Amino acid sequence: MHTNPIKKWHQVVKNNDFQLLEDILDDSVIFYSPVVFTPQKGKKITLMYLSAVATLFNVDSFSYTHEIINKNMASLEFELELNGIHINGLDLITWNENQKITEFKVFVRPLQGLNALHEMMGISLKDKY
Amino acid sequence: MHTNPIKKWHQVVKNNDFQLLEDILDDSVIFYSPVVFTPQKGKKITLMYLSAVATLFNVDSFSYTHEIINKNMASLEFELELNGIHINGLDLITWNENQKITEFKVFVRPLQGLNALHEMMGISLKDKY
Repeated sequence: MHTNPIKKWHQVVKNNDFQLLEDILDDSVIFYSPVVFTPQKGKKITLMYLSAVATLFNVDSFSYTHEIINKNMASLEFELELNGIHINGLDLITWNENQKITEFKVFVRPLQGLNALHEMMGISLKDKY
Repeated sequence: MHTNPIKKWHQVVKNNDFQLLEDILDDSVIFYSPVVFTPQKGKKITLMYLSAVATLFNVDSFSYTHEIINKNMASLEFELELNGIHINGLDLITWNENQKITEFKVFVRPLQGLNALHEMMGISLKDKY
């Protein structure tokens, strides 16, 4: 088995453990939103996005459904419902030799689900900052 | 190495070889569009969608950028530009013990890219059928 930060990422999601999240993110981590093209560079802004998402996704209907992992990348598929709208998404996570996450990219389908997430994240981020 | 249909899928994309595509799809294959929630069931409709997509993606700017493969699933990330709009997508492909593709799911980000693809695919599918 390769060492990877994915088990710890699952703990972050399960326990809303943002201290652990900070531990597993590299300082130069880049977050790629499912909505916006522009990469969000750095630990601070990545923490902001991921903690907003983690809070949103902390609903009973959320679960990871499939996972494919290799030496330095993982593809984690998830499903959830937001206000009755089905969301099917995928986290594409890359890490370095220190097992620190260097890229975190989120994809969401279908279009209706992406629009719902966009709206909810806009509200959530505005509440926090 | 596990046997998988991914090398053949790359040949399909490279050569627009829809005969080969038909060979590697299982009869019960399900296509999941990045736009629409409803799964598209069966070989005929999956061929229709994938050949429309393959034609659209047959542009100089298209390339697969990362690939993660395990025993029966692959996650293939791609990038392209459509009319100056950046599209970053991912094919999540599942196959059975006969190396026939049983599920083909497409994710696209960002929102602007998904909207552009939606519009272009609508035009392309209408042209064909």
